[in-house]
Amino acid sequence: MSEAKAGEANEAKQAAGEAGAALVEDGMRVGLGTGSTTAFALRALGRRLRNGELEDVAGVPTSFAAERRAREEAIPLTALDEAGGLDLALDGADEVDPALNLIKGRGAAHTREKIVAAEATRFAVLLDDSKRVKRLGEQAPVPVEIVPMALAPVTRLLEARGARAVELRSGQGKDGPVVTDQGLWVVDARFASGIPDPEALAEALDRQPGVLDHGLFLGRATDVLVGRESGDAEHHQREEGA
Amino acid sequence: MSEAKAGEANEAKQAAGEAGAALVEDGMRVGLGTGSTTAFALRALGRRLRNGELEDVAGVPTSFAAERRAREEAIPLTALDEAGGLDLALDGADEVDPALNLIKGRGAAHTREKIVAAEATRFAVLLDDSKRVKRLGEQAPVPVEIVPMALAPVTRLLEARGARAVELRSGQGKDGPVVTDQGLWVVDARFASGIPDPEALAEALDRQPGVLDHGLFLGRATDVLVGRESGDAEHHQREEGA
Repeated sequence: MSEAKAGEANEAKQAAGEAGAALVEDGMRVGLGTGSTTAFALRALGRRLRNGELEDVAGVPTSFAAERRAREEAIPLTALDEAGGLDLALDGADEVDPALNLIKGRGAAHTREKIVAAEATRFAVLLDDSKRVKRLGEQAPVPVEIVPMALAPVTRLLEARGARAVELRSGQGKDGPVVTDQGLWVVDARFASGIPDPEALAEALDRQPGVLDHGLFLGRATDVLVGRESGDAEHHQREEGA
Repeated sequence: MSEAKAGEANEAKQAAGEAGAALVEDGMRVGLGTGSTTAFALRALGRRLRNGELEDVAGVPTSFAAERRAREEAIPLTALDEAGGLDLALDGADEVDPALNLIKGRGAAHTREKIVAAEATRFAVLLDDSKRVKRLGEQAPVPVEIVPMALAPVTRLLEARGARAVELRSGQGKDGPVVTDQGLWVVDARFASGIPDPEALAEALDRQPGVLDHGLFLGRATDVLVGRESGDAEHHQREEGA
């Protein structure tokens, strides 16, 4: 990406982050996601709290990275079992389709992100235009967090469901596979031109022994905020009953 | 349990274990379960290999405990991804109902046991008569392996599905919760007079974010071998298409 392009992307991410932070109201318990767009939301949320615009807000982080960022912004933290349900969760995504279904997990935090999203009355996803797709799986791989022993059966399952390539994720700072915050592994499944049937894939992965959680978030997002370079954000809401 | 009773139980477990080991044939790849009844099967399998009755057998252990026991019995070991499918898996259970559905996980090894069972053409369960119930959950709790963060939502799910008591498992040798071979936690859900709808409970747990795996093994066992104090074993097979 050129520097100019990266700058535009950052402006769009910042616009989405600011719009997300604007959803937080006094007294809310808020899930705090991981990723670069959500980082802008945490920065804006910290600013609103320090300004005195907001009070009595507590966050539940979805990863070690989110926890650290929230502490830097002096956002008060609580635990999911103490919060007793969340009013709102703020998070990014790797892809969103027109029905507000998502792929998440580029940061390997999708398991805790899904736990937190499932506990929230409202789940708002913050992203820029580059993440919008017609069909899930067009651009992003589907990450699946697994017990190491399940690598072969999970790979076979993904290939049988149309994945073109299934790869055990490796990264930087550690040779061999990436190890998640839970101590498990991640495989990434790429599809040539989108996932043929995301619902069927999600159900098969839910049932597969040795899978902790996958990056398909279907029917979970209530709001999607798409940031623009101009600094404002488009707000999409899930239709009732959808 | 009195010493006499314990002796009888051991004879029945040994009978089931011997009957399980007798299912192994030359060239088979065999899943090796955890637990006291399966330990008798591993002992008998080791003896058959040393005797020269069997050859070219390799085992895939379901836990650190099973691996250690197999090594003591000099049973050759392999990994699930090298074995390329298993011919047979041998394992115990905490409960079995008349349709050969199981509760497993007293040893907190049910996640790897389920991975292995799912890969096996034949899944034989070895137990004594005390494990047979009319309805799953009559005697044994349902163990659920979870990410620590999911404790509150999983507890609520289990209570909503009829659990009378849900307890985070603790043990011996370590203060606080038991930590599994995967580094996660186990909650045990007890039901007053059996689980109202095991299929619905299994499906809800499969879908619940933060659940790695639960101890309900529905429609997975192909054979159940019930050991008798007399030294023989009753053999139940799942009906075709059931």
